[in-house]
Amino acid sequence: MSTKTVKEQLFQMVKEVEDIALTKVTIVGVGQVGMACAYSMVNKRVVSELCLVDVDEKKLQGELMDLQHGMQFVGNIKLQAGTNYELTAGSKLCILTAGVRQREGEDRRSLLDRNVSIFKGIVPELVKYSPDTILLVVSNPVDVMAYITWKLSGLPSHRVFGSGTSLDSSRLRHQMSERLGIDPTSCHGYVIGEHGESSVVVWSGLNVSGVRLVDLNPKIGTEEDPERWVDVHKQVINGATDVIKLKGYTSWAIGLCVSELAACVLRNKKTVYPLSTMAKGVQGIEHEIFVSLPCTLSQNGVNAIINMKLTDSERSKLQKSADELHELFKTAKI
Amino acid sequence: MSTKTVKEQLFQMVKEVEDIALTKVTIVGVGQVGMACAYSMVNKRVVSELCLVDVDEKKLQGELMDLQHGMQFVGNIKLQAGTNYELTAGSKLCILTAGVRQREGEDRRSLLDRNVSIFKGIVPELVKYSPDTILLVVSNPVDVMAYITWKLSGLPSHRVFGSGTSLDSSRLRHQMSERLGIDPTSCHGYVIGEHGESSVVVWSGLNVSGVRLVDLNPKIGTEEDPERWVDVHKQVINGATDVIKLKGYTSWAIGLCVSELAACVLRNKKTVYPLSTMAKGVQGIEHEIFVSLPCTLSQNGVNAIINMKLTDSERSKLQKSADELHELFKTAKI
Amino acid sequence: MSTKTVKEQLFQMVKEVEDIALTKVTIVGVGQVGMACAYSMVNKRVVSELCLVDVDEKKLQGELMDLQHGMQFVGNIKLQAGTNYELTAGSKLCILTAGVRQREGEDRRSLLDRNVSIFKGIVPELVKYSPDTILLVVSNPVDVMAYITWKLSGLPSHRVFGSGTSLDSSRLRHQMSERLGIDPTSCHGYVIGEHGESSVVVWSGLNVSGVRLVDLNPKIGTEEDPERWVDVHKQVINGATDVIKLKGYTSWAIGLCVSELAACVLRNKKTVYPLSTMAKGVQGIEHEIFVSLPCTLSQNGVNAIINMKLTDSERSKLQKSADELHELFKTAKI
Amino acid sequence: MSTKTVKEQLFQMVKEVEDIALTKVTIVGVGQVGMACAYSMVNKRVVSELCLVDVDEKKLQGELMDLQHGMQFVGNIKLQAGTNYELTAGSKLCILTAGVRQREGEDRRSLLDRNVSIFKGIVPELVKYSPDTILLVVSNPVDVMAYITWKLSGLPSHRVFGSGTSLDSSRLRHQMSERLGIDPTSCHGYVIGEHGESSVVVWSGLNVSGVRLVDLNPKIGTEEDPERWVDVHKQVINGATDVIKLKGYTSWAIGLCVSELAACVLRNKKTVYPLSTMAKGVQGIEHEIFVSLPCTLSQNGVNAIINMKLTDSERSKLQKSADELHELFKTAKI
Repeated sequence: MSTKTVKEQLFQMVKEVEDIALTKVTIVGVGQVGMACAYSMVNKRVVSELCLVDVDEKKLQGELMDLQHGMQFVGNIKLQAGTNYELTAGSKLCILTAGVRQREGEDRRSLLDRNVSIFKGIVPELVKYSPDTILLVVSNPVDVMAYITWKLSGLPSHRVFGSGTSLDSSRLRHQMSERLGIDPTSCHGYVIGEHGESSVVVWSGLNVSGVRLVDLNPKIGTEEDPERWVDVHKQVINGATDVIKLKGYTSWAIGLCVSELAACVLRNKKTVYPLSTMAKGVQGIEHEIFVSLPCTLSQNGVNAIINMKLTDSERSKLQKSADELHELFKTAKI
Repeated sequence: MSTKTVKEQLFQMVKEVEDIALTKVTIVGVGQVGMACAYSMVNKRVVSELCLVDVDEKKLQGELMDLQHGMQFVGNIKLQAGTNYELTAGSKLCILTAGVRQREGEDRRSLLDRNVSIFKGIVPELVKYSPDTILLVVSNPVDVMAYITWKLSGLPSHRVFGSGTSLDSSRLRHQMSERLGIDPTSCHGYVIGEHGESSVVVWSGLNVSGVRLVDLNPKIGTEEDPERWVDVHKQVINGATDVIKLKGYTSWAIGLCVSELAACVLRNKKTVYPLSTMAKGVQGIEHEIFVSLPCTLSQNGVNAIINMKLTDSERSKLQKSADELHELFKTAKI
Repeated sequence: MSTKTVKEQLFQMVKEVEDIALTKVTIVGVGQVGMACAYSMVNKRVVSELCLVDVDEKKLQGELMDLQHGMQFVGNIKLQAGTNYELTAGSKLCILTAGVRQREGEDRRSLLDRNVSIFKGIVPELVKYSPDTILLVVSNPVDVMAYITWKLSGLPSHRVFGSGTSLDSSRLRHQMSERLGIDPTSCHGYVIGEHGESSVVVWSGLNVSGVRLVDLNPKIGTEEDPERWVDVHKQVINGATDVIKLKGYTSWAIGLCVSELAACVLRNKKTVYPLSTMAKGVQGIEHEIFVSLPCTLSQNGVNAIINMKLTDSERSKLQKSADELHELFKTAKI
Repeated sequence: MSTKTVKEQLFQMVKEVEDIALTKVTIVGVGQVGMACAYSMVNKRVVSELCLVDVDEKKLQGELMDLQHGMQFVGNIKLQAGTNYELTAGSKLCILTAGVRQREGEDRRSLLDRNVSIFKGIVPELVKYSPDTILLVVSNPVDVMAYITWKLSGLPSHRVFGSGTSLDSSRLRHQMSERLGIDPTSCHGYVIGEHGESSVVVWSGLNVSGVRLVDLNPKIGTEEDPERWVDVHKQVINGATDVIKLKGYTSWAIGLCVSELAACVLRNKKTVYPLSTMAKGVQGIEHEIFVSLPCTLSQNGVNAIINMKLTDSERSKLQKSADELHELFKTAKI
């Protein structure tokens, strides 16, 4: 009987390797949001190597094992988890979902102080081990957290962005699809501005195959509209709160959203999404703030911001949203 | 200004329809397991119509909305949720994940009484609205619950099966892949018998590209093996318990597993999986019990059971497992 | 030694079945277009059962074997091929690519007579064996062939449509993406009307994230435009001819297009595509003709036609296109 | 009216980039095989950037345009084509399909001289522009061409391999699946040795869920077997020739095969495939030859060769195959 192990007998080694995969991604925070992002990316095979980081070692190992036990069904993805950022080295994209969760009825703004200090322990570590990474911020209040991440990272602004109103826009398109009875991917429309109550629906841009709804219903988005499309905006704004009231947290939609944004970065697609980005100099915004506008997204992060044609009312709402964010940013204790 | 709605103006209706999609699936139970199954199937686009049923109306609506908000990122899937089984009509596959959850340290057997009465309210309703459906049982103890489902359904046995040791086998293959440093899809091996502590690893069948590990290490699977591959079995048996200890429940791996089984049924693939199936007359099993053996799975459910070549020791372990299940079945208050 | 076969020994049969898969598709014509459609659908796992029909038995068997030899890499898809339409029974969708190929420089209209008689041998056979099927016509001249297919089929008009300008629109969006440097899926625009030289670009609808290009460049689409976006239309019109000149035929793009349309039907998605559909009563079209307009597509075929807001110039071009088609239809020897 | 272009007006540029995508692949040769590889990789989104090289500029541009016209349906993939290898810079994987095609009835060996000189113009150029690339050789006779590519490249042997008997093995598994009536992915078996008439079926390894067919039918693979499984090998050997006779060339199966191998490399999967690899020192092979053996494949190419347990007969056939290849290699005019 051989004294060699099964492995030694089974393989004639040619080249032993432990290289970093081409599409390595780190997720910081393994709460409901972080794990929905991870699970969506694993199911869709967006990544070949996935690193989970959190402060809760026990939870980390549980989530890691639970994912590993299913690898037979998606094909080999290298999975790692730990509290030490060394594991994250070489990540092409880092997704920040850490932070305390929005409580039922809690204002996004009130989350701020609780989350800034957490990010001070995260962002510099990520950049230290992956100096060429892109940072995608999901934690709320997302516009502020993206701004803070940018400041803490020392990276050029195009390499830091927040998921912003990409989820709000998806909620908008779901509501359109319900009203019209068609696929949401055929319902086009954007929510811009702050991810939250002061978000702005660009009613002038809502369209199906280029047919603008405002041309069919000139009062769309106003209180005078007998069809009350304005309620769609209310449903979008209340979307997160409603889900939190019903199931305790949101997870699946943001997971699908982040997984798509990650695929866009890793595959260098240059697709347009509304993202929270450094908006100074766009749409008359004068301050250095992060707020959501349609952007083209590639492996370098944000390539360009789309200059939307806003109505006066839309622009003034956006600027009000921007001003509120600027006030918030000023109070952030970075 | 038109008095017609946007929808009326936008569309020239040709054929108004609300047909059931070709690949409609129902999931009963929207706990962690049910929702991991749902989310995996949505991400992988295994289904075109998904119906969630539970007794908790609030949770149901929250999960439904959370999934709907992400539909833009996967393309239109018709999603429904409710407490009324009428919604499930026309399902090609129903997945049963309902039941009370295994407590930390709880024996799978002790779950039985708590779950039988729940199934009495579920199974006849599913069959009533989808008389041609396939029933896939995930609830634990899975072998017993699959048996009970079969009895309650009145369906031929091939149309009812449990996820059984398909997850145990995936855990086995993950452990093999860790030891050998290769893709788990290239690590072949089966856990059969009861999904639980008395499960049986078919050591004689473990192989990589047809090279049987037992030919390299004749003591594999025994206590005398210096490499202690037997510990792999212990890790498989403890897999669920370990994850529950660490994160509170298992979800991701079973979700990936069920999603793959669902795809196999809906796509009529005839792939081999170890499934909990009516095993009377196979491997010397005399009683009408459900226990896991490799089966070919298609849109008609289980087509065939593979006659494995077991060693005497493996067969006697399987029969012991079968006897224990038979004892359990007898006590089930159907 | 057993006198039983390996199969008899290996399996304990539970339920022998040879059912038709839920998503069976037939392709008629295994030329370059038909096979590109087949290969795309196989790669994307759009179908679970695929039936190829042609008059060339030898070619059929070669294509069948070549696909079958690769099934390990996509997972089991049931593949069949033959000259007898009995094989096609139970198809949910039939794709017609048969017909003689467009010659270099050949007018689409000149193809007509050569193709009508071919379709008389195909369409009634398809409907005989799959009375509930949807018919997707790809053969050129597609608008005429779709009309003829409808007439020959006896089916309601929503169940017959042509790929029409869905490919032209994709070519348009590729040209937009080249000019703008972004993902074509973020470039929105429609080519409608005849699939051919008299097609109409709806310049007023071209947009990126709801920003209409005509608002940035009011002369877009005219000969006065200094950026000459009108050349994009020329490239779209010449797209097929250019590719035919260079490689002898077109295949890949139409294959990707048809594969997506097939997925939309089989998954009941209700997505909007410009399709060749019965257009009487829309946009002032008075005759019973097939011409491309944006439609919502589901498992029932065309559900609705989108009422586009056309400029006078666009509408008059569409009507001219419609009139030309009507002339052509009148000459078709059905 | 603005004098700025639409692009200038539409975008506020943040970061103009033209980076190489993380998963760039080059295909050399745009014949039927090269384009089937390209189309499969595009459909399955294996690559984010694809570069086609050939000597036929006209064909190249036609294939490029035809793929580009379909990009709307798969999402943005950067496509390039040209006769100049500068385009290929930064490829992670280069796939060589160039060479003159096997004629009906032509021995694979007779292709050699026609192809060696072609490779002298290709391999050094690829390595010059992508010094860290992996080279995957598909051109026939594949074992010789892989060996020659290795010699011409100057790369370590693990970074050069041929598709070898991965396609033969897939053909074998298709034949098994036909005989057994199950999914080919559940039929396990390997063809090793030369890709051609002297290939070796490892009958001892054929299994379904670990059940070895040889244990059910000890005469399997011999002329004495009443079930004549040996005919399966004949069908495998004749697979290519049969398809060529029927349709003129092989394309789809090799495309699916190469697309899967490419995904394995780009995703660092460490899956086992039978590949043509430098086999000196394995299974008693003494010469520096390339021949197919099961290998684990990662982003570094071949990591390890599996030491198969061969019967004396199988090993002697393999060595005969190896000797024949060695003779051929000696005659190659490198």
